[in-house]
Amino acid sequence: MKKNAFYAQSGGVTSVINSTAAALILEAKKYKSKIGKVYAGKNGILGALREELIDTSKESITAIESLKARPGGAFGSCRLKLKNLDENKREYERLVEVFKAHNIGYFFYNGGNDSADTAYKVSQISKKLGYPINCIAIPKTVDNDLAITDCCPGFGSAAKYIAISTMEAALDVESMSETSTKVFILEVMGRNAGWMAASSALAKNSSTDAPHIILLPEVTFNQHKFLSKVKSIVKTKGYCVVVASEGVKNSKGKFLAESDRKDAFGHAQLGGVAPYLSSLINSKLKLKNHWAVSDYLQRSARHIASKTDLLHAEAVGIHAVRYAIKGMNGVMPVIVRGKSDKYTWSIKPASLSKIANVEKKLPKSFITKDGFNVNARAIKYLQPLILGEAYPKFFNGIPKLEKLKLIEVEKKLPKWKL
Amino acid sequence: MKKNAFYAQSGGVTSVINSTAAALILEAKKYKSKIGKVYAGKNGILGALREELIDTSKESITAIESLKARPGGAFGSCRLKLKNLDENKREYERLVEVFKAHNIGYFFYNGGNDSADTAYKVSQISKKLGYPINCIAIPKTVDNDLAITDCCPGFGSAAKYIAISTMEAALDVESMSETSTKVFILEVMGRNAGWMAASSALAKNSSTDAPHIILLPEVTFNQHKFLSKVKSIVKTKGYCVVVASEGVKNSKGKFLAESDRKDAFGHAQLGGVAPYLSSLINSKLKLKNHWAVSDYLQRSARHIASKTDLLHAEAVGIHAVRYAIKGMNGVMPVIVRGKSDKYTWSIKPASLSKIANVEKKLPKSFITKDGFNVNARAIKYLQPLILGEAYPKFFNGIPKLEKLKLIEVEKKLPKWKL
Repeated sequence: MKKNAFYAQSGGVTSVINSTAAALILEAKKYKSKIGKVYAGKNGILGALREELIDTSKESITAIESLKARPGGAFGSCRLKLKNLDENKREYERLVEVFKAHNIGYFFYNGGNDSADTAYKVSQISKKLGYPINCIAIPKTVDNDLAITDCCPGFGSAAKYIAISTMEAALDVESMSETSTKVFILEVMGRNAGWMAASSALAKNSSTDAPHIILLPEVTFNQHKFLSKVKSIVKTKGYCVVVASEGVKNSKGKFLAESDRKDAFGHAQLGGVAPYLSSLINSKLKLKNHWAVSDYLQRSARHIASKTDLLHAEAVGIHAVRYAIKGMNGVMPVIVRGKSDKYTWSIKPASLSKIANVEKKLPKSFITKDGFNVNARAIKYLQPLILGEAYPKFFNGIPKLEKLKLIEVEKKLPKWKL
Repeated sequence: MKKNAFYAQSGGVTSVINSTAAALILEAKKYKSKIGKVYAGKNGILGALREELIDTSKESITAIESLKARPGGAFGSCRLKLKNLDENKREYERLVEVFKAHNIGYFFYNGGNDSADTAYKVSQISKKLGYPINCIAIPKTVDNDLAITDCCPGFGSAAKYIAISTMEAALDVESMSETSTKVFILEVMGRNAGWMAASSALAKNSSTDAPHIILLPEVTFNQHKFLSKVKSIVKTKGYCVVVASEGVKNSKGKFLAESDRKDAFGHAQLGGVAPYLSSLINSKLKLKNHWAVSDYLQRSARHIASKTDLLHAEAVGIHAVRYAIKGMNGVMPVIVRGKSDKYTWSIKPASLSKIANVEKKLPKSFITKDGFNVNARAIKYLQPLILGEAYPKFFNGIPKLEKLKLIEVEKKLPKWKL
């Protein structure tokens, strides 16, 4: 029986999430007897609740293909975690009403832990509500913190950006350190897991190369040890490059970026572990330093995406469709690493029950004894994920974007109110 | 008469300054009857004062060619402005002593305004000191603030990085703005001139595209107008992207980044116009916002260098050598833009007397009436400078670096003391 499909992007976007969307939409076209149209949620799951469904069949194949070079979420994403069925049954009922009204039998949810949880709940509940749906969660997160899967699409490209940025900035600092900046701090994302900060270690060609210090959320910040380390590295190398995760915490479990800082208006200032460390180095070591905060740049840097990551992103989109038409429900296509020394990978289905709400942190076995860097095991894991380049097409000096039509399907239901 | 050459990098480095070095070293090899060896100053002009001269003839052609893909200053740069002859004659005498000891007859100084000034002084003084030297200053600065030349090598690549980063981050913000970040702020370099901030406008495909607000050092910051503008853009577009130059000043002529902020240790905090604006938006508009500070990343992003900029950087290196062997002194090879609509350029010599210590700001005619953006004239000027890509070779997922030998010439003089 032919059913339409609903695809939604969820949570923080990545530079390759649209590659997953494109691959999924193109793959679905191969199964015309089973899948009708693919609707994309405008602003993620909100699009389903509000019945704002973008008809991807109105886009040209060229436009869909062009998504593979477009960072951000082409259909819009959102931060909205559905509550438990007991707490907010109405939301689930509405989802099912919308799916029913538009003959949607497949639900593809492209996100992180929360989205896996939502997809899992819908997979269990839709049958109870009398309208069974095949729910497939598709992995995506620069945080790389999903369980079961070897890595998460989006992470490899962020990791590549961070490694290259660290290497390039380090060459800059090195060349000026005699008379100028001695310490450079790069702040990267990762509130709870240090995968992104760890990936800066891929900038190293030798053990004494930058980054000299990596501050991870998994390791409690020790001010004294940190300052001693910076001082000794500047003494021996002439300069020191620090990569700090935004999620670094002190011994009281408080984010460094939140500690005691007031802005010009007297408000506690959030964000900015880099300026915090800069202040610390200014006042305690009196060493000239510079800092950068990469923020959204690191998760949208499609121009320097990892080819491997891009292929992962496409593959999970393709397999999501294949699983759905096989009638699978409550699963996620995950990336499985081969056992040989040469990097190989494949895609397999995994049950959402094992993925929903689980957060995979950087293992202790990846971190050096002193807690200030990652070791060869970490490098062995990380390295393959940044391999290969996948440059977008350029026009007028910047990446070329194709215009999308983003035509919405006519509404059939009353307006939704939260 | 055959003389050796001395080449030094000066001031803040760029992603293409080593391309100038490579082109100059390779060009010099073509004139074996006139130019002996090319010595590079270790850490810029300090290398001459300290008699730390790197013998570039010891490097393989492959290693020299590889410099074209290496950001930072391969031989080291420094921030050291030579004083006037009356104030510190000893420094000039030492330079000439070192040049004499190593049979150096050509002095190539690769830098900005200050370096042009130094090269100019040496060009005038060396004859007086009885050892005439051909002094050629070579343009380099991401600030794009040198007089006479149409643009400065290093700027086009920084501009390309800023335009692409702005575009990519804007796509990210746009896709999440419904339930998440409404305002994104990118801080870029430019203490006195807004060229780099202006280049973010190249991210626009249409007039309503990001960046919606550009804050320039040439325009006094008006808090009320800024906040109103942010508010109205968020209302109409759903989100607002701001690109702010680090050099934005208030009506008292004070850098915003310096105004009244205290860090955790009670010290006035320098740097960070982005976190300043973020605080302002938090407290006055209560709009969720994110900010990034690109700092050294923007001037070392060789991975996304502009091909046009790279060709400029090579051309000024090549022409510097040609001018020197023609016996020219006190000149700089500058970039001249052709008059046709299609972008063309050539290199011509210009007298250092017209370049030394002059700072070229963004002209008023490039800025929109409200002071919050740049206009079509600015775009027409900027666009050609970011055209073309010039990717480095990659190895293991990151740009490949060749090892340099950096062998120093044997010293012949007593140790230098400042």
